[in-house]
Amino acid sequence: MAPSKLSPGIPAATYGARLEMARRALAADGGDGLLVGVGADLRWLTGYDAMPLERLTMLVLLRTGTPTLIAPRLEAAPARLAPAVAAGAVALMAWEETDDAIALVPPLVTGGSDGRLRPSRLLVSDRLPASFVLPLQAAFPEATFALASAVLRTLRKVKDADEIRLLRAAAHAADRVVLAIAAGRLVGRSEADLAREVRERLTAEGHEHAGFAIVASGPNSASPHHDASERVIEAGDPLVLDIGGSMRGYGSDITRTLWVTGGDERRGPEPEYLSLYGTLRAAQAQATAAVRPGVPAEEIDAMARRPIAAAGFGPYFIHRTGHGIGLEEHEDPYLVSGNAEPLEIGDAFSVEPGIYLEGRYGARIEDIVVCAENGPDVLNEAPRDLLIVAGV
Amino acid sequence: MAPSKLSPGIPAATYGARLEMARRALAADGGDGLLVGVGADLRWLTGYDAMPLERLTMLVLLRTGTPTLIAPRLEAAPARLAPAVAAGAVALMAWEETDDAIALVPPLVTGGSDGRLRPSRLLVSDRLPASFVLPLQAAFPEATFALASAVLRTLRKVKDADEIRLLRAAAHAADRVVLAIAAGRLVGRSEADLAREVRERLTAEGHEHAGFAIVASGPNSASPHHDASERVIEAGDPLVLDIGGSMRGYGSDITRTLWVTGGDERRGPEPEYLSLYGTLRAAQAQATAAVRPGVPAEEIDAMARRPIAAAGFGPYFIHRTGHGIGLEEHEDPYLVSGNAEPLEIGDAFSVEPGIYLEGRYGARIEDIVVCAENGPDVLNEAPRDLLIVAGV
Repeated sequence: MAPSKLSPGIPAATYGARLEMARRALAADGGDGLLVGVGADLRWLTGYDAMPLERLTMLVLLRTGTPTLIAPRLEAAPARLAPAVAAGAVALMAWEETDDAIALVPPLVTGGSDGRLRPSRLLVSDRLPASFVLPLQAAFPEATFALASAVLRTLRKVKDADEIRLLRAAAHAADRVVLAIAAGRLVGRSEADLAREVRERLTAEGHEHAGFAIVASGPNSASPHHDASERVIEAGDPLVLDIGGSMRGYGSDITRTLWVTGGDERRGPEPEYLSLYGTLRAAQAQATAAVRPGVPAEEIDAMARRPIAAAGFGPYFIHRTGHGIGLEEHEDPYLVSGNAEPLEIGDAFSVEPGIYLEGRYGARIEDIVVCAENGPDVLNEAPRDLLIVAGV
Repeated sequence: MAPSKLSPGIPAATYGARLEMARRALAADGGDGLLVGVGADLRWLTGYDAMPLERLTMLVLLRTGTPTLIAPRLEAAPARLAPAVAAGAVALMAWEETDDAIALVPPLVTGGSDGRLRPSRLLVSDRLPASFVLPLQAAFPEATFALASAVLRTLRKVKDADEIRLLRAAAHAADRVVLAIAAGRLVGRSEADLAREVRERLTAEGHEHAGFAIVASGPNSASPHHDASERVIEAGDPLVLDIGGSMRGYGSDITRTLWVTGGDERRGPEPEYLSLYGTLRAAQAQATAAVRPGVPAEEIDAMARRPIAAAGFGPYFIHRTGHGIGLEEHEDPYLVSGNAEPLEIGDAFSVEPGIYLEGRYGARIEDIVVCAENGPDVLNEAPRDLLIVAGV
């Protein structure tokens, strides 16, 4: 079923407001221009979900005036349909297959051949590839270059009601996939086979991009970013499922940990694993409960770390507690020691502590959480207890 | 079925040979170091298919000595399994979650704290994001930066026998998907629904990444990069399917054009469309037949353009004739006017002319072709005639 029929996306008027916010933030930063390539920044500003081609697609936004979207001729049709272009808030400039696309940028920035503006500070989107960054630097030899996140990160970090609605829909779709996998056959199947089923189910649930499917069984569960392998799942295995992708542009990302018994009670989780999991469960709940506006991001990380350290697992929680999520799978804010930035209403991020005993096993629990006025708004709804399943 | 069981991948020894070739090419270029982030360059050099994270993963390769792979701690386990690391041809350096990863690069390049080498020219991988490029420039204020393609593009462009075998396997998988779609129900289904089926079938055929599925029906067939929409396919529609992704790292990319009759003979293709298609078919065949070592890349483009122009469709063939393919969907060589570089044995690329009458309809035919000693080795095997199907 096509989810686009079920709920509206981002209203077109939102893009006009975002462009205006970006112009103001650029002026406040002292930057002369924002050069935004394909990716989440471009999509956030214009609604244009451009193909990541080696051909240059670039939004040129100055402090004043209508921004211009440079796009290859054969992308002109989809570019014209981008909400901000269709609404006239952005002008489209198409280049031909044999043009030097980079050469189109300076006249736009300097305001034409009379060169009214000599830019001294230009901001490029953080994901812009070196193959565009270096030629742009050569085209503006007198300008210093900085990252567009200097002006866009605080704007993009805070999600509005439409974005939270889309994140929630993606989270619920991922919830259903995890539960379907947990209810199905597991014993005798390879991790890779299960990962394929995860991707198929994410697609069937409306994800346009079944981004990742970490399926880590037995000792592999001790590797946080394990790549699904040919290892065959057997009775007595723990199984970490960390899956997600994007639905209508917005990310899903959930981790649940299962224990596969094969229907044999004697192959249930050993007491030490249950104890480890209990600690993790408490840590994830405690960190989530601590979410509220004004709390430093690193404090959520510390809240997750405390019970884990108290139980003696401190050295085995080897990654940060969470990452922001939105049009990118990983974006601001990061819940990590050293990030003292206070949480704001509308911040959306994962809370995902884990414990990893290399060579033995591991576990992780992850939800997407929005910082709401009164505390955490947890988008995922799948149960967080250790899912002990027969898997036959 | 897991294709990895069916055929071997790239032999581990190949990576050692590639690293040595890169060292030599770097010296010939006059560069002091190659700084390679996540992506095809890294995979080609080391076999490491790293996750594209915001955390720094970077191969530091100098003219002499063992290269070092900098990777975040929680990627250490998969990084250690990368063929070049496992074979000892690359040293691994893991950084902790709260480290400043960029700060690890200068000591490696300067040869430790005694600073034996002051680099004057550093090459960064073409896809390296600005968020790493700009901090690296700040860390090496005296160095000029250039693109790694200066030394890697000619090396990566020419595929060896193992790579051609993997490209062929990916092409055949994509062939089967196109034929399965052509044999199934089309009438009454939306483009987006069909695109989902394409992705599912690519995955089922062993693609780990069902990269793209252009499904362009009716008037949408006149947009080369049309995004699959909610438009419902009906009898009398032309249908352009341009699909692909990657299988064991290597890209597939095929385009076939169908005509959907709905089982009603009166809804078959009109004479003008058949004529347009006949011209296109001849152009694609003629361009393919012209492939052989020493022929300039732009000459293949010209060969495709000539019959199309002769039939009066010249202005409606609005893109280049092809792009290289390998570990990236689009890479060197590009078959485009202005690229006089002669084809070499082992070059792999698409040959994909198209004719697009905006508002009415369009068509495209695409194969992946390898330049072999005696001429073209066409990897795709699906028939290239207009596929006239009932679609009910």
